[in-house]
Amino acid sequence: MTGRRASVVGAGHTRFGVRPEGPRELLRAAVDGAFQSVDRGAVRSDVTEAFLGSLGFSGWQIGNASAVLAEEARILGAPVTHVENACASAGFALRAGVAAIESGRQDLVLVAGLEKMTDAPSRRRRYWLGVSGDTEWERLAGLTFAGVYGLIASRHMAEFGTPAEALAQVAVKNHANGALNPNAQFQKPVTREKVLEAPRVADPLGLLDCCPVTDGAAAVLLASETVAKRFTDTPIYVSGTGASSDSLALQERASLTSLAATRRAADAAFRQAGFDRSAVSLLEVHDCFTIAELVALEDLGFAPPGGAARMTLEGETRLGGRCPVNPDGGLKAKGHPIGATGASQAYEVFLQLRGAAGRRQVPHAERALTHNVGGSGASATVTLFSVS
Amino acid sequence: MTGRRASVVGAGHTRFGVRPEGPRELLRAAVDGAFQSVDRGAVRSDVTEAFLGSLGFSGWQIGNASAVLAEEARILGAPVTHVENACASAGFALRAGVAAIESGRQDLVLVAGLEKMTDAPSRRRRYWLGVSGDTEWERLAGLTFAGVYGLIASRHMAEFGTPAEALAQVAVKNHANGALNPNAQFQKPVTREKVLEAPRVADPLGLLDCCPVTDGAAAVLLASETVAKRFTDTPIYVSGTGASSDSLALQERASLTSLAATRRAADAAFRQAGFDRSAVSLLEVHDCFTIAELVALEDLGFAPPGGAARMTLEGETRLGGRCPVNPDGGLKAKGHPIGATGASQAYEVFLQLRGAAGRRQVPHAERALTHNVGGSGASATVTLFSVS
Repeated sequence: MTGRRASVVGAGHTRFGVRPEGPRELLRAAVDGAFQSVDRGAVRSDVTEAFLGSLGFSGWQIGNASAVLAEEARILGAPVTHVENACASAGFALRAGVAAIESGRQDLVLVAGLEKMTDAPSRRRRYWLGVSGDTEWERLAGLTFAGVYGLIASRHMAEFGTPAEALAQVAVKNHANGALNPNAQFQKPVTREKVLEAPRVADPLGLLDCCPVTDGAAAVLLASETVAKRFTDTPIYVSGTGASSDSLALQERASLTSLAATRRAADAAFRQAGFDRSAVSLLEVHDCFTIAELVALEDLGFAPPGGAARMTLEGETRLGGRCPVNPDGGLKAKGHPIGATGASQAYEVFLQLRGAAGRRQVPHAERALTHNVGGSGASATVTLFSVS
Repeated sequence: MTGRRASVVGAGHTRFGVRPEGPRELLRAAVDGAFQSVDRGAVRSDVTEAFLGSLGFSGWQIGNASAVLAEEARILGAPVTHVENACASAGFALRAGVAAIESGRQDLVLVAGLEKMTDAPSRRRRYWLGVSGDTEWERLAGLTFAGVYGLIASRHMAEFGTPAEALAQVAVKNHANGALNPNAQFQKPVTREKVLEAPRVADPLGLLDCCPVTDGAAAVLLASETVAKRFTDTPIYVSGTGASSDSLALQERASLTSLAATRRAADAAFRQAGFDRSAVSLLEVHDCFTIAELVALEDLGFAPPGGAARMTLEGETRLGGRCPVNPDGGLKAKGHPIGATGASQAYEVFLQLRGAAGRRQVPHAERALTHNVGGSGASATVTLFSVS
């Protein structure tokens, strides 16, 4: 490594949910928020490169969406790259932004994520939700993402005896956290009974095991060490980034109950960061379905294989627990605007590590991990952040 | 800059045209070609990161296409990022690959570009060809890309007196070059009369002023200076990269006859490279329509505004001329598989600067420029290459 570390010096976020605004307005609001959050101010012309994470859901500006970010961020002329890695689009955009800083090319980089999902007609929505799965073996055969994660959940239950209550508890915890987050789509607690009794979507997953369809945008400003202190006394450093790929189709993988891309991405990130899992104060993991949070905790190395259920049921992952997971409500309650999620996770970490997360603040948070998964695990990123 | 230069140590290319193979096979063939071209061999596990340029034309694997590259390149596990910047997708993927090397993160990076276009039904094809234009003001109003470049051509003629013969001469030259390129879609020379008499598509542009609809893939292997000489004695160095953005809609721009994104990208690339335009032996420019080559030569600084027509008519841009442009036939004759074009340009430069371009070789080629444009100029990259 070159030793040129990147840090987050600003972050912005729209409210997630069914939004009346169009994609341009959402993007503009998140970026404006990021600029406004910079302690000593940053101007548009300070930004010399930008990256946009987006799937282009429902066919809105599939090509050249990068130009929309250039326009709405008012940075016309700066190079802007559109990164698409399905639900991990913004995670990979963040990775590219960090590389632009580490390469010595840039000193202030904007990374934004966006998705406008709820204005697609519901029949087309099913089509769009499938486009990140394997085309030949999954999508054309009618396997939805709920179906994919239903298979993962069934297998996890069979292999490790994971109880339905543990899955439900993920939803209960994340809804409780979402109730403390003014940007969350759902700000209402749910009971374990309600989760277990909800209509089935793809057995064993019920309606409350699934993240919702969401509109929203988030953005972060990354600075080099050379300039970070010009903008703030408390930059949040990117200590390590890891990313990995895997087969697109589930059938090609050795295991259904573990995502190899997550394992490899986590190992790479911790190798670079030089600190251990025990030093991490909070995690933002990719809980597109409740089972995904359990699998993530095991793959990230915070629980042994099959051990995340116990950890969750014993309260270790709730706010106030030993290892708080998804304090912002996660994809489950905060919502999952596909291309925005990776940037939204970085936004939450920026607040948490600066002690600015309000009612959902994790006390003494010094290091954090974000984990963003593309589709059912064909790509994943892990990013580690630190206050020093 | 860090001083860690990237270089091209291998490159592969499928034949462009109406191909019977599917997208996976095209990608695999280009990547296999890139590995086979490495003088002292490279193995799959040497590649620690990869980037894919693709629009996802006709809806094939819109989400998570990165995983398809991981599978077909047999580099499963390496981080793979899908970059979409319309017709400049691979140009921006190349830029990201160079940054990954310059950051010190990686020593061998794969950059591939792909598009499979001809299997879309012709009515859907018109839709897909439009997705990189402005949605609200151009696409939904029925303005096609031929229409956009027809407007640019009309205005260029009105402003500078550019004769139709100059546009036609671009086609004549590029078809003559394409006839020398075994990978070109069209390997048949055309006469100026034939171009001028071809059916009109969007006046003043006729059928032979427009690049075709094409299937194809191309790939390059980028190495750091630390390892390049392990692979070859003659790496082709990336001396400078520039990229820029502009408004998506033509109506927002100050001029119709000049692309600001190209001008800014070229200036940035030359600033980094530290050599002058006069040192460049050949250019690969984005001639999606004949007028685009003239505008590119002016914006890149190789002709004054309005001066590219004379330069073209006097033969300066043909093989054997003072400043050969598109020796491989360009988008016009070689074909334009959208996401592959930027990688295809780098492939041509790799051959030319190593003296391996056969019948279309530019003598004593030492430095080259590639120019890749997204849509009608909402994004552009310029990359400079050098033998030393």
